[in-house]
Amino acid sequence: MDLNEKALILHKEWGGKLNTVPKAPVNTREDLSIAYTPGVAEPCRVIAKNPEEAYTYTMKANTVAVISDGSAVLGLGNIGALAAMPVMEGKCVLFKEFGDVNAVPIVLDTQDTDEIVRTVAAIAPAFGGINLEDISAPRCFEIEERLKSMLKIPVFHDDQHGTAIVVLAGIINALKVTGKEKENCRIVVNGAGSAGIAITKLLLKYGFKHAILCDSKGIVRKDNPNLNWIKKQMCEVTNLENKHGTLADAMAGADIFIGVSAPGIVSQDMVRSMNKDAIIFAMSNPTPEIMPDLAKEAGARVVGTGRSDFPNQVNNVIAFPGIFKGALEGRAEQITEEMKLAAAQAIAGLISNKDLSEDYIMPEAFDPRVKDAVAAAVKVNIRKQQL
Amino acid sequence: MDLNEKALILHKEWGGKLNTVPKAPVNTREDLSIAYTPGVAEPCRVIAKNPEEAYTYTMKANTVAVISDGSAVLGLGNIGALAAMPVMEGKCVLFKEFGDVNAVPIVLDTQDTDEIVRTVAAIAPAFGGINLEDISAPRCFEIEERLKSMLKIPVFHDDQHGTAIVVLAGIINALKVTGKEKENCRIVVNGAGSAGIAITKLLLKYGFKHAILCDSKGIVRKDNPNLNWIKKQMCEVTNLENKHGTLADAMAGADIFIGVSAPGIVSQDMVRSMNKDAIIFAMSNPTPEIMPDLAKEAGARVVGTGRSDFPNQVNNVIAFPGIFKGALEGRAEQITEEMKLAAAQAIAGLISNKDLSEDYIMPEAFDPRVKDAVAAAVKVNIRKQQL
Repeated sequence: MDLNEKALILHKEWGGKLNTVPKAPVNTREDLSIAYTPGVAEPCRVIAKNPEEAYTYTMKANTVAVISDGSAVLGLGNIGALAAMPVMEGKCVLFKEFGDVNAVPIVLDTQDTDEIVRTVAAIAPAFGGINLEDISAPRCFEIEERLKSMLKIPVFHDDQHGTAIVVLAGIINALKVTGKEKENCRIVVNGAGSAGIAITKLLLKYGFKHAILCDSKGIVRKDNPNLNWIKKQMCEVTNLENKHGTLADAMAGADIFIGVSAPGIVSQDMVRSMNKDAIIFAMSNPTPEIMPDLAKEAGARVVGTGRSDFPNQVNNVIAFPGIFKGALEGRAEQITEEMKLAAAQAIAGLISNKDLSEDYIMPEAFDPRVKDAVAAAVKVNIRKQQL
Repeated sequence: MDLNEKALILHKEWGGKLNTVPKAPVNTREDLSIAYTPGVAEPCRVIAKNPEEAYTYTMKANTVAVISDGSAVLGLGNIGALAAMPVMEGKCVLFKEFGDVNAVPIVLDTQDTDEIVRTVAAIAPAFGGINLEDISAPRCFEIEERLKSMLKIPVFHDDQHGTAIVVLAGIINALKVTGKEKENCRIVVNGAGSAGIAITKLLLKYGFKHAILCDSKGIVRKDNPNLNWIKKQMCEVTNLENKHGTLADAMAGADIFIGVSAPGIVSQDMVRSMNKDAIIFAMSNPTPEIMPDLAKEAGARVVGTGRSDFPNQVNNVIAFPGIFKGALEGRAEQITEEMKLAAAQAIAGLISNKDLSEDYIMPEAFDPRVKDAVAAAVKVNIRKQQL
């Protein structure tokens, strides 16, 4: 039986991948009078007096909403709200199993930016954090920014930041393996959607100086009049030499290639044109931009993909559960750039210099140390914010 | 320790009354590849092709959203969204424990009718049903009606219909005890909010002919120019003799008093002015409109309250879990009047004529037969709809 068949059978058997399970017993009249009326009125009164107490008396403290409009679902594109549900439920499962965080899937019957912002803001009180998921670019940037400025709980678009954090973690270790220095590296990011843009931004924030962003038309450059607003904005910090040309042109002389784009679009010649000890993260899924063996054969030193059947899997599950665990436990009001950088460094730091190698730059998704290391890194930075 | 103290301590210990718990394991890479990427794409594709399949492959099939704007919380009034959370979580606990239905609490940071309708409609795809809760009248009527016409899943304002169903169930049995006939009974309903109006409507639908609705100003009558739209509407089916006066005037010669109003506002004299074998449902909580012993002393034959420490508790938990269980299992698109009547009859029917007495007209909340009896009654009526 192939994987798709198996997935279908199991999803049917599960009939939904989550249950809501009471923590409060209601086996007796007295139970009922405490968990429900009249006793429940007392925590209500306390919260009405001081809203902060919601973190003490309700599930807001440890519950995240996983919200999508189904406009950019992993590899499936714009399949709409209802069809995105299995992904959102799966994400909620990962939140719980990898981060001890309760999560509720919410899919939206609208793809209008204003309407999404309004809806998410309206349902926010029940939740301690908002994980935006599979919302297409460039709407995702505006939606996230507006919600961040409206809400006092963390709002995090995982396709952007989760991916960026894990990529940065891998890159930090790949630099150690190759002896490259961030200040001198030339980076090419192929794919100017939510992930590509967030990756580029975080790498620059980390201290890289030279990045070029490519989209399906080639190098993103400021004298192209047809760019959307986010690409225009990115031209202020990338491609400072204003290069023109194709992806191949961009890759010549580069040290790092990061693909969040399409299967098979990187050739061995393109890898050969890169600098020595090239680092390749080919994360198109399930088929990478170039297969690891071909990339290695063409001279790449470190190769990562999105797949679990090759070394160096770049997998968001290493980041987002710990990020929210830390943010909720520390009651962060935002996930800041500092937290993201700290999370990436914490992930990278889980691999000792002794163990580090070309084929082991990334901790396993199942490494039990991951969530606590990430959560701790996030929490330290909440305290720093407050000082 | 008093109940309030105890409720506060336990709510703090629980830290929220619900957990989200995965049904899908993610202990191995293969697990991950089925519950999440890439396997999860297959149920997504199937649902994208045929939206009905969401009921097979996602938690939509057995999950209800419990939604409130916190504008009319049990006895507490307009305490807002966040402070209403403990009640909504409690309701979700009851859904699960008494109806095997998953439930998610959602509280809304808006009390604007249009905005509530828009928000609930936007988040509806993830859910198999919507339970509206503690929304003030008369907005609750409009919100429910508009959502019912927009959505193809059951929308049910429990403060209205849950209460009405349980009251009708009790009245059906009280008629048997007293030998009264519905066609000849005079009913007074005191309280013209969500519950009072829904109770009156359902009793009329059941076959009662003579009902008078009272509000804090007295008898609701059509020649009063200050009525809101719903009270005006109710004048077309109640107080057909256009009586004027106070609650006391209304109760003189009545057979049934139903109070969803305020503590202690019914006197023994008012009960004495009623017909022989009067039926009194004094549901103000925690202090009834008249205490059962006083009502009995003044001649009432059957007395019900909202409290668990007196006989004949009128408790919504007898109705809503089974209602949604049946509606979800039968994939009803609406909760119809027929379903409500059938549910009330099913509840009443759980008490055999042999067991029936003045002090036992209502099954216990913990009676394990209740949910299945109610669910079955609802399901039969889905089938009838479809024929």
